[in-house]
Amino acid sequence: MSKNFKIETLEDVSGLGLVKGFKVAGVACNIRGNADLERLDVALICSDTPATAAGVFTTNDVKAAPVYVDMEHLSRCGKVKAIVANSGNANACTGERGLKDARDTCAYLAGKFGVDENQILVCSTGRIGEFMPMEKLERGIDTAFSNLSDSDSASAAAAHAIMTSDTRPKTVISKVECGGKKFCVAGMAKGAGMIEPNMATMLAFIASDVSIEQPRLKEILRRAVTKTFNRISVDGDMSTNDTVLCLCGGAGGVEIDGGDLEEAFEEALKSVCMSLARKIVGDGEKITRVVELKVKGARSAEQAEKICRSIGNSLLVKASWYGGDPNWGRLTDSAGYARTGIDFSKIDLDYNGTPVIIKGCPQSHNKELWRKIVNNKTFTINMNLNMGEFEDFLLTTDLTEAYVDFNKGE
Amino acid sequence: MSKNFKIETLEDVSGLGLVKGFKVAGVACNIRGNADLERLDVALICSDTPATAAGVFTTNDVKAAPVYVDMEHLSRCGKVKAIVANSGNANACTGERGLKDARDTCAYLAGKFGVDENQILVCSTGRIGEFMPMEKLERGIDTAFSNLSDSDSASAAAAHAIMTSDTRPKTVISKVECGGKKFCVAGMAKGAGMIEPNMATMLAFIASDVSIEQPRLKEILRRAVTKTFNRISVDGDMSTNDTVLCLCGGAGGVEIDGGDLEEAFEEALKSVCMSLARKIVGDGEKITRVVELKVKGARSAEQAEKICRSIGNSLLVKASWYGGDPNWGRLTDSAGYARTGIDFSKIDLDYNGTPVIIKGCPQSHNKELWRKIVNNKTFTINMNLNMGEFEDFLLTTDLTEAYVDFNKGE
Repeated sequence: MSKNFKIETLEDVSGLGLVKGFKVAGVACNIRGNADLERLDVALICSDTPATAAGVFTTNDVKAAPVYVDMEHLSRCGKVKAIVANSGNANACTGERGLKDARDTCAYLAGKFGVDENQILVCSTGRIGEFMPMEKLERGIDTAFSNLSDSDSASAAAAHAIMTSDTRPKTVISKVECGGKKFCVAGMAKGAGMIEPNMATMLAFIASDVSIEQPRLKEILRRAVTKTFNRISVDGDMSTNDTVLCLCGGAGGVEIDGGDLEEAFEEALKSVCMSLARKIVGDGEKITRVVELKVKGARSAEQAEKICRSIGNSLLVKASWYGGDPNWGRLTDSAGYARTGIDFSKIDLDYNGTPVIIKGCPQSHNKELWRKIVNNKTFTINMNLNMGEFEDFLLTTDLTEAYVDFNKGE
Repeated sequence: MSKNFKIETLEDVSGLGLVKGFKVAGVACNIRGNADLERLDVALICSDTPATAAGVFTTNDVKAAPVYVDMEHLSRCGKVKAIVANSGNANACTGERGLKDARDTCAYLAGKFGVDENQILVCSTGRIGEFMPMEKLERGIDTAFSNLSDSDSASAAAAHAIMTSDTRPKTVISKVECGGKKFCVAGMAKGAGMIEPNMATMLAFIASDVSIEQPRLKEILRRAVTKTFNRISVDGDMSTNDTVLCLCGGAGGVEIDGGDLEEAFEEALKSVCMSLARKIVGDGEKITRVVELKVKGARSAEQAEKICRSIGNSLLVKASWYGGDPNWGRLTDSAGYARTGIDFSKIDLDYNGTPVIIKGCPQSHNKELWRKIVNNKTFTINMNLNMGEFEDFLLTTDLTEAYVDFNKGE
């Protein structure tokens, strides 16, 4: 089936500043309170005119203050003038004072733009359980506000400012052509897992120059996130602050309301999310391998997802990948303890297409091939349950000694 | 409330041979096929007269052949003459041939005793996906059969023969006095988690000299296992072979059919199971700490259990324990992603009784005390959700670099 649109996705291009109608900034205000005064820690993303906005948030019962405030603002308003994001402090588990700090942050920035505070969103990532140094943050907002720009360097600075233990910034842009019309979707994100000692969060910010109604954007974003950011796992630990925000400013003059244009927009958005999700996994803390787990032939979508997560979060499976050990016993064991009713004698398993098990029979003559594959930095594992028509996938990593050392804390 | 019975539990006493009416053996037949010809790998446990038997088995979809065969035999017969257990080979993921091997093993031993093969149970632990070396195993059974004895050394040999990566044998006996009557319950077990590369399984064998009807024994064993063996976790990986078997031979002449005697029997059985469970966790692979997690004030039993497991299986929480880091942020984060609807502002948390959080407020002035506690080899974490009356617990461990190294395989 040919598609009536063309999408060009450029990786690691500077980011949100490239989207018509958006300006960004990344500045340093020493939120961490340490010696590195130059470390960027406040990002500002602003739309020339209030943008249609949608968000997807952590489903953790314990949510950070900014998550509550953003959910509130989005449900009240649906239009967003700007997002302010800081690294170094998560403003999580900070009670009433944390909520007040998050609201005050929005109000402070709203005052500078002269908009309603419901049009401001705030995101935080960093240490849990410490109060936000509000004076520093406000000084950071002042500087960021006066530095807003659509330059490449401003985009790069914004992408750096949200990093915690990430080793590199994560940006991508998809340029779309559809029926003579052009638009783009760009994104930036920060690291997977709970990452640094006491640190939290995956954050992703996406901007587009299309115009779109909020209910439609919400639905499209939810679908895109489900099959991208919600299909990655480094350590299985879901943070208190995870947030994906998408702003559509409309400066490009293309309206999305169904048909080919909507299909193109959804695919571009999904492509941006998937690219950022891959970058997050690939930059997972102290990992040495990225593994794409695919489960098909399931009786239900739920079964396929459960088995993917059971395998992809098994310590023993992940430790064996670290060792480059093609340990299918642990794989089938962890698939089994998902307790979805699989039948080992029906299972086909392959690594990068090389058969490991066919209908429950190990193909041991391929062992040398398996070992080579599992020693690659990336590989794909396909499991066919041969029970039905459903499938799912998970992008995951190995578990390394360095991860444990990195996360052992004090 | 005073109880009408007295239970004395003796740890690390030689084991099942001490129970009236039971004989045991532990011998070497080189199932691993390696240089260590002396390594004990076949245990035999036999009751003078066929014993009432009950079992609890792994709920993994992928079950090892002996698990299927034992479930079959127990449902057909309910009386057991003997259990044969081997280490070195799990007979898991071995298809039809594996099933035949497990059945042949039972038939072989049944022939020696001159009983129906349904009166024999078989257990295996070791490598997954390799066929059992049947000739060696049969020679091992021959030797074990002629070595059966109630001596201390025979009991010790049996407890050694089921070990894989365990660093020490695990045995316990509870002696009960109730209304002038005396009986005992003894047990032996082997290691937690999936343990060695490609290895599987926790096994526990319990013997008592009481007489009891099978349905009653089944119910009592199920309850005991739920609150003991099912409340431990080293790495969250449930094996294909996990089995708990309990044989009641009746040679002591005490019948259990309700009242104080039954209460005493249930408590003794639970005490044996809990003692073995603790030994398994304490000998978990490359661990440095054992943590007792208690969650109370839950709205339901399910909520309490879910939160225990979510915290106790969090890589980040376990890594922080390894580092002796009293990281309550990760604890509350992982409690939150159990997604049971907790309210952080209601939570009380303490380490060994020292307050960490009171109604959502961190007690940071206690930080030095927390740190000391978390640096112990064992400590208790209490979380009160303050939502209801239900509680649960989990005995778990830290996650160490050595665990990852040990399990990384080839």
